[in-house]
Amino acid sequence: MTLPASNKIQTAGVHKLKYVTIEWLQKRGVTLQDIAQLVLEIQLKYVPHLTIEECLESVDRVLDKREVQNAVFTGLSLDELAEQGRITEPLLGMLRRDDGLYGIDEVLALSIVNIYGSIGLTNFGYLDKVKLGIIGTVNDHKGKEVNTFLDDIVAAIAAAAAARIAHRARDMEAQNLA
Amino acid sequence: MTLPASNKIQTAGVHKLKYVTIEWLQKRGVTLQDIAQLVLEIQLKYVPHLTIEECLESVDRVLDKREVQNAVFTGLSLDELAEQGRITEPLLGMLRRDDGLYGIDEVLALSIVNIYGSIGLTNFGYLDKVKLGIIGTVNDHKGKEVNTFLDDIVAAIAAAAAARIAHRARDMEAQNLA
Amino acid sequence: MTLPASNKIQTAGVHKLKYVTIEWLQKRGVTLQDIAQLVLEIQLKYVPHLTIEECLESVDRVLDKREVQNAVFTGLSLDELAEQGRITEPLLGMLRRDDGLYGIDEVLALSIVNIYGSIGLTNFGYLDKVKLGIIGTVNDHKGKEVNTFLDDIVAAIAAAAAARIAHRARDMEAQNLA
Amino acid sequence: MTLPASNKIQTAGVHKLKYVTIEWLQKRGVTLQDIAQLVLEIQLKYVPHLTIEECLESVDRVLDKREVQNAVFTGLSLDELAEQGRITEPLLGMLRRDDGLYGIDEVLALSIVNIYGSIGLTNFGYLDKVKLGIIGTVNDHKGKEVNTFLDDIVAAIAAAAAARIAHRARDMEAQNLA
Repeated sequence: MTLPASNKIQTAGVHKLKYVTIEWLQKRGVTLQDIAQLVLEIQLKYVPHLTIEECLESVDRVLDKREVQNAVFTGLSLDELAEQGRITEPLLGMLRRDDGLYGIDEVLALSIVNIYGSIGLTNFGYLDKVKLGIIGTVNDHKGKEVNTFLDDIVAAIAAAAAARIAHRARDMEAQNLA
Repeated sequence: MTLPASNKIQTAGVHKLKYVTIEWLQKRGVTLQDIAQLVLEIQLKYVPHLTIEECLESVDRVLDKREVQNAVFTGLSLDELAEQGRITEPLLGMLRRDDGLYGIDEVLALSIVNIYGSIGLTNFGYLDKVKLGIIGTVNDHKGKEVNTFLDDIVAAIAAAAAARIAHRARDMEAQNLA
Repeated sequence: MTLPASNKIQTAGVHKLKYVTIEWLQKRGVTLQDIAQLVLEIQLKYVPHLTIEECLESVDRVLDKREVQNAVFTGLSLDELAEQGRITEPLLGMLRRDDGLYGIDEVLALSIVNIYGSIGLTNFGYLDKVKLGIIGTVNDHKGKEVNTFLDDIVAAIAAAAAARIAHRARDMEAQNLA
Repeated sequence: MTLPASNKIQTAGVHKLKYVTIEWLQKRGVTLQDIAQLVLEIQLKYVPHLTIEECLESVDRVLDKREVQNAVFTGLSLDELAEQGRITEPLLGMLRRDDGLYGIDEVLALSIVNIYGSIGLTNFGYLDKVKLGIIGTVNDHKGKEVNTFLDDIVAAIAAAAAARIAHRARDMEAQNLA
């Protein structure tokens, strides 16, 4: 890419990109509620009174970020194109079998996690390994569907939303003391 | 690290971390104005009416981020401790001569650049290579001072502030059209 | 992805992945010789007797790495699919106009640069900004071709190959002294 | 850093850097055997006949990499200097309490994991979360010792060594079929 020149025509749709992102996730079987549930499970022990509504709001805010939207569009396009057989070999096979040496799914996920700093990294890895909640469901559908990117992207959004809550919990404590 | 437990005592100072960050940069010879000047030079061609005030505000906002503050504290501590000879070999020599195979300075810088997504990466690399403005000054002082982290950190803050402006310029165009 | 289980059938083609990678690059107008030329230009001042043959060998070695192959396959597939209009909006438009806020091309490039550590980061950013040699050619073809990923990937391979030479130059000096 | 100029005097010690790295880890209570044990536990299900000797060799090879050595030297220096109270506030407190919003330890760890590509990311996060083996021991010593960087670095070395085994297992299968 090149840093943006002014171009009004191209940017008219920016406002709606977030809603398109949410639609793409739903089309692949994942709702914001599903992701918020993951956030609640990993973050509840650190923020005792955390509610599902706060988690949902945090997921919503993560999806405001262009870097996150871009990763979702790119990863889910690759999953879908692979499912339809519209990608050339050898990449097609790697995506279809979620090849163990194909790590671009983690690379995209990392670009999501990094949005709130590196503190989300551990939660991302954990979610991706234990296949909690919706991540397990998505993973179980592999074989008939191609979800090579989807599971990592969902884990990354949850980890970023948890990191955002951690940052805000700390900031609020500081304000209460000030 | 471990995601934060509630601990009021430890967080009282959070509010002031940004100002301490600015002080640390000044102590090593870099003002926000210096960094804003870099932002203006690299971003002016993309955002024609950009002012130094807007650049300064963007740098200021970048410094609100804990990840950025942490990278500044860690990098400048290492520079200073190396200058005072308080670090053990072989690390001391690597830091003092800005060893060509020591890349942890770039690693910390990247954690700053990533805050506004990967679009700042190119500007970071460019600034770091051509040693524009204050980066050149800081670099020239190497030898008598240890600035192994400082030059990369300054380039990274400028690149992140430029990326933030790029994101906002695009968002505003979208709103004007809506 | 999931770390690899043993699966003989799926791995028979691994040996040839490097040659497929080279073919894909050539199909998009980039030869190893073009990339080696970039390496020579950026690295000659640090390693005075460096030859184009050594640069070519270093590029060749970079392409042995699965992470690099994966990034090439993924990025060039996206460029080609966008060129053919086979990608859904809004991603299609972002790829076609090399959108300023689309940073996934840099994200993939970074996964290549990181293979030899972070010391290649500065060279990557510089190459990507000044559009040296083949990168400029590839960039000029934007408009009729979609090269959103190609230019960043070429810059990243050159930066990684330069970092590899830097590591080896240092190692050899150490051996000569031992 | 700046890419390396030829400088014989500075590089004489390069050969021994790996052994210094091993010493530093041991001084902080971690042996290569401890790390190899982690590798065996996470990788055994994917590579059924894996032995502790192979894991040990893989850890040893990871420690050949300068990027890994640099991360170890930098992280363990910061742990030790914080333990001795030789770091200025507010960084000192962050390191001593392993502050939840301090993520530079993960940033350094990531630079280790990336050496064998992104496939190690999930294992890193998992190890760091469940505190397996020596990581749990190191973590339990927090309070009297400062191990803010040590636990992440150990998890990262184990994850990288596991990724290296995954890459090699796949390569060998391919050769057997050729």
